[in-house]
Amino acid sequence: MRVLVVGATGTIGSAVVAALARRYEVIAASLSRASLHVDLADRASIASLLKSAGQVDAIVSAAGVARFAPLSQLSDDDFALSLRNKLMGQVNLVRLGQDHVLDTGSITLTSGFLGRQPARGSPAVSLVNAGLEGFVRAAALELPRGLRINVVSPPWVTETLKARGMDTSPGTPAAVVAQAYVRSIEGSDSGKVLDP
Amino acid sequence: MRVLVVGATGTIGSAVVAALARRYEVIAASLSRASLHVDLADRASIASLLKSAGQVDAIVSAAGVARFAPLSQLSDDDFALSLRNKLMGQVNLVRLGQDHVLDTGSITLTSGFLGRQPARGSPAVSLVNAGLEGFVRAAALELPRGLRINVVSPPWVTETLKARGMDTSPGTPAAVVAQAYVRSIEGSDSGKVLDP
Repeated sequence: MRVLVVGATGTIGSAVVAALARRYEVIAASLSRASLHVDLADRASIASLLKSAGQVDAIVSAAGVARFAPLSQLSDDDFALSLRNKLMGQVNLVRLGQDHVLDTGSITLTSGFLGRQPARGSPAVSLVNAGLEGFVRAAALELPRGLRINVVSPPWVTETLKARGMDTSPGTPAAVVAQAYVRSIEGSDSGKVLDP
Repeated sequence: MRVLVVGATGTIGSAVVAALARRYEVIAASLSRASLHVDLADRASIASLLKSAGQVDAIVSAAGVARFAPLSQLSDDDFALSLRNKLMGQVNLVRLGQDHVLDTGSITLTSGFLGRQPARGSPAVSLVNAGLEGFVRAAALELPRGLRINVVSPPWVTETLKARGMDTSPGTPAAVVAQAYVRSIEGSDSGKVLDP
């Protein structure tokens, strides 16, 4: 089974690759450090990636940028970047990617806990994450050929907290978060928000 | 008390105006038929409206367009319009409008049931509605001066079903839906998704 992982070199993405590589052929893509290049904010870049990757059994996205900043400091450009990158980038990966996924395969996107549990500074991130979850619930009703789609909503990841010099006690290890992506690929869920 | 209603001539908006006009001074705005003009997709038009309206105690939005169509038929332009109009139009109304709302006043936006209960044809609408709900939950944590913000999630409206020649039995009358907006203005909720 072949799995395309977009955002394969990030904290979560690399844990997903590690979890999948035991059993599957992983095709790794990211903005700069993986073997295949993709800029999620650029539709043509996504199309080019999919052409290079060929037919796959599953697509996983652990990619996308959204701006964390207080409402009073979020600019028009901050909202535009967040919508173009993490939100529409992943939506476009579904729109274009579905034709590259074999029958009964799956697509798994990434939102984040701020979509349902906001924090100060999260207006743009919460918008993007909740929007992705709304999209996935709806898209699941329409995907052809038995394709499934889910979105993983990661909590604070231990490695991220550590890298930022923050208290790691509320964190979940990336390897644990990665198991939600494995569940999405191997289980029967569709249209679901998966909590690691 | 002065309330600015954006989308004042629509099915829900006109019911909101009718409910509020008994007790408040209503300033009605819409794309074409109200006394004040506003194009929600145009940031400058929102700024101009707010300048004309002056200081208010509450802002209500029952406006915004998002494209209802199957995933396979939604174009890049359909997504762009939905994001620019119903989603970012209402987000920008909050960003710009908060400075025009008096202390302890409120802002009330409109999403819709498809954000949480999708249907075939709703991927763009579900994305927009859920995204608005995520934004409102987060923005509520940051609004200054005791301002509150909520989003009403209308179900099928009886008048809309009737106008489309559809079965009206799952419908809720617009006058009933309007009461959720009154509750948002007069109650103490903030950061909530209000179901009529």
